Amino acid sequence: MRLDEIVARLGGTLAGDGSVLIEQVAALASAGPRQIGFIVSAKYRQQLLTTRAAAVILPPQFADDTSLPRLIHPNPYACYARVVALLNPPPARPLGVHASAVVHSPVPASASIGENVVIGHAVSIGENVVIHPGCVIGDGVTIGADSLLHPNVVICHDCCVGRRAVIQAGAVIGGDGFGFAREGELWIKIPQIGRVLIGDDVEIGANTSIDRGALDDTVIGDGVKLDNQIQVAHNVVIGEHSAMAGCVGIAGSTTIGKRCTVGGAGMILGHLELADDTHISAGSLVSKSLRRGGQYTSIYPLEAHDEWLHNAAQIRRLGKLAQRVAELEKQLERMSAGVADDTCAETNTEAGA
Amino acid sequence: MRLDEIVARLGGTLAGDGSVLIEQVAALASAGPRQIGFIVSAKYRQQLLTTRAAAVILPPQFADDTSLPRLIHPNPYACYARVVALLNPPPARPLGVHASAVVHSPVPASASIGENVVIGHAVSIGENVVIHPGCVIGDGVTIGADSLLHPNVVICHDCCVGRRAVIQAGAVIGGDGFGFAREGELWIKIPQIGRVLIGDDVEIGANTSIDRGALDDTVIGDGVKLDNQIQVAHNVVIGEHSAMAGCVGIAGSTTIGKRCTVGGAGMILGHLELADDTHISAGSLVSKSLRRGGQYTSIYPLEAHDEWLHNAAQIRRLGKLAQRVAELEKQLERMSAGVADDTCAETNTEAGA
Amino acid sequence: MRLDEIVARLGGTLAGDGSVLIEQVAALASAGPRQIGFIVSAKYRQQLLTTRAAAVILPPQFADDTSLPRLIHPNPYACYARVVALLNPPPARPLGVHASAVVHSPVPASASIGENVVIGHAVSIGENVVIHPGCVIGDGVTIGADSLLHPNVVICHDCCVGRRAVIQAGAVIGGDGFGFAREGELWIKIPQIGRVLIGDDVEIGANTSIDRGALDDTVIGDGVKLDNQIQVAHNVVIGEHSAMAGCVGIAGSTTIGKRCTVGGAGMILGHLELADDTHISAGSLVSKSLRRGGQYTSIYPLEAHDEWLHNAAQIRRLGKLAQRVAELEKQLERMSAGVADDTCAETNTEAGA
Repeated sequence: MRLDEIVARLGGTLAGDGSVLIEQVAALASAGPRQIGFIVSAKYRQQLLTTRAAAVILPPQFADDTSLPRLIHPNPYACYARVVALLNPPPARPLGVHASAVVHSPVPASASIGENVVIGHAVSIGENVVIHPGCVIGDGVTIGADSLLHPNVVICHDCCVGRRAVIQAGAVIGGDGFGFAREGELWIKIPQIGRVLIGDDVEIGANTSIDRGALDDTVIGDGVKLDNQIQVAHNVVIGEHSAMAGCVGIAGSTTIGKRCTVGGAGMILGHLELADDTHISAGSLVSKSLRRGGQYTSIYPLEAHDEWLHNAAQIRRLGKLAQRVAELEKQLERMSAGVADDTCAETNTEAGA
Repeated sequence: MRLDEIVARLGGTLAGDGSVLIEQVAALASAGPRQIGFIVSAKYRQQLLTTRAAAVILPPQFADDTSLPRLIHPNPYACYARVVALLNPPPARPLGVHASAVVHSPVPASASIGENVVIGHAVSIGENVVIHPGCVIGDGVTIGADSLLHPNVVICHDCCVGRRAVIQAGAVIGGDGFGFAREGELWIKIPQIGRVLIGDDVEIGANTSIDRGALDDTVIGDGVKLDNQIQVAHNVVIGEHSAMAGCVGIAGSTTIGKRCTVGGAGMILGHLELADDTHISAGSLVSKSLRRGGQYTSIYPLEAHDEWLHNAAQIRRLGKLAQRVAELEKQLERMSAGVADDTCAETNTEAGA
Repeated sequence: MRLDEIVARLGGTLAGDGSVLIEQVAALASAGPRQIGFIVSAKYRQQLLTTRAAAVILPPQFADDTSLPRLIHPNPYACYARVVALLNPPPARPLGVHASAVVHSPVPASASIGENVVIGHAVSIGENVVIHPGCVIGDGVTIGADSLLHPNVVICHDCCVGRRAVIQAGAVIGGDGFGFAREGELWIKIPQIGRVLIGDDVEIGANTSIDRGALDDTVIGDGVKLDNQIQVAHNVVIGEHSAMAGCVGIAGSTTIGKRCTVGGAGMILGHLELADDTHISAGSLVSKSLRRGGQYTSIYPLEAHDEWLHNAAQIRRLGKLAQRVAELEKQLERMSAGVADDTCAETNTEAGA
């Protein structure tokens, strides 16, 4: 595709030769002929001098750093995302229902239902939906138009997925929430009769699990992005455009605001509320509600193991250490006064003797 | 169903109009007509005054707080669980083996084998077992009566699942344990010839993995409840009625007692023993055997990120800080003695001059 | 199999009666007739006196501790691994493609393609490959000779798996990396056009996810062993013969050296480099590059919950505590000087009055 054609489709400003042919996007350092590179931050500015790319996507402030054909855009990273999408349309899947699929509900002609897919009764499949092989869609499920399910995804009965969803392989939507009542030493299962409601433009990662609600529903807002291996418990609510990295866990009935982020392996306990624009650092555990947005962290800092042994042992004595410091302060205050008073007193006494 | 009919089936004491019709259970705050609410703790007692529920499940001590028809029960939460189950029987699955399933073993007529299920040779399937689409059951597996497997569960060869099990979608039972012998820089695989033995009344969460034993078996006791995304390594033994929340990991050959609980993302190292009634807080790592029950925790407390930066930096200096405090104590002790002695001495000297 | 036959096949030195028949390997403590036990460390040396095993694998230094028939080997653990493999060949799978599989590419006659497997177009399957039921192999995938895929594994389009791979059930290779560009409050998906390249002799655990690269590839080196429930993000590179325990997470674009190990639930942030022979303790979070091999740890030590409450509260005051100690030190230094000076001065003054 010609560079000027890309600019015409995606916006931004063209500088240099618009007729250059672009076949692929690549990192500036490794890009070759017919490839367009991109630069987002000043950190890689030097690479503009040495790149062998055919063209570059860059922000206005670097527009004069190169004479290469270039696509100038105020948000070069989003522009890069769109150029990648333009040059790499998803591999086409054959329209219709594969002969090996078992489908108990009507499917629009624009949809693609892969090998060995199972679709239950009373399922609603939107236009252009693509379901890869091995997926199992329970009775009463709704999947919005233009959604894409990768292989072996499971969506349990009565759950709703919005439009333009992307669900990676092995994800499970709508398993039973973990609800049990204690009776003596036994656990009595509480049937989970809520659903999972997923908004539009949501992405859900590989082997991620989102449980159905106990009585009410689990709710994933529009534009939410969840990475792989995430656990979302029953009755969690995730606000619009929040994003979470791999291995995150969210316990039951917690409500997370809009535009929040959670770093990898972050863990959020149950029945909490996190304000809009709250950001949890990777590996941090949230054990209380956070009423104000901002960045929060709970990481024990990494050390060489021998130093860790030395320092971590002190953690168990930290309460006592604090008491000892308080004791020292008292003692010193007493002494400090005493040094003057007592010595004066003694001096006087002695001197007067 | 009439309230008096519910009481007749489940026990408890009826107060008020037993003829009221109950269709569903709901939270007290959101319950409407034909719905029964429930109250467990004093925290929500005010809601008894304003609820629009048709009836309420409550403990004896709140029995006089409302004039609504009510089911009085000493364990209202377990009673609520049973009312939900009574009003929400699991969706019926068609009996028999679906034509698309590939089944190499006999299946009782009372069982339901879903679309595209694969059942190997020498498999024993109990009465009333329900296997959802896409499950793969290896050769020699035993599944006890009344067990329920959600879609795409894998049970590898020779593993045993007890009666009334519930296994959520995507769970893997009986994968190889992670066993390798080091030889130079290579890892030599140790074939895992043990099995997984799962007792009765066990629940296993979505995308949870339980590895088979190396030589002996991995054992999950009766009544154990495991949430989603849990990893149970080879030769782990989990005692009866223990329960674990999402994202927990248990390393190899660890034995966990009865009635234990592990909070979300708790991690228990290998070759340990945890006593009965041990409770591990969410996000905590257990690195030593715990011979006495009780609650254990290892969480770095959450802070606003700037405060964390300030405080966490001190962790790496904690051993030194403790030394400095000890040094201060010594110095102060010396001085404290010295202040009296030296100043007196000096005073005397000077005064005597 | 006779013991002398085992020695002839696997190497090592025979002592005692080589004609003894060995059917299985067992732990020394539980081994019975026709079973061979093994001993690796002095810790279990006493068991040599009481074992009922028919024979023993042991290192030269324990060779005289028993009169049982024995296989003496300098690396008894690796020898044990090989004896287990010799006596427990993997259950045979029927050669050829099962009638229920949907296969769009040629498959060698030596391969075994199980029930309901789906193989896409332009897939290359090596000799002796075994693919268990329910696996989905995307278009353009390569799987090297002698590799084994357990049930319900997903390998997405264009990924490459080397020779002798073992992939446990439910693993997902080649899902989209988690790449989005922010635009206002929206996240714009960056299509992930890289692949996953997996070397020879790699093992991948149950429900583990390895994402495809954004532009370049995600690379798993020869001999790498990954346990269950692991998350490997896009563009990660894992060096040869590194091994990681369950629940580990590795964020995007991180490069891990050769012969590294990561303990269970270890978490490694993105864009980092870990040197060869780096070992991360279980439950530790790596937030910076580690240029030198060695063992690193970041664990908050476990305590009884009440003690934790007492000590953890101090963490949030640790910066202040350090300041207070510094203040004490200054004060004491001043006083220490002052005790002499001031008291002398005062003494003099008073005495001189």
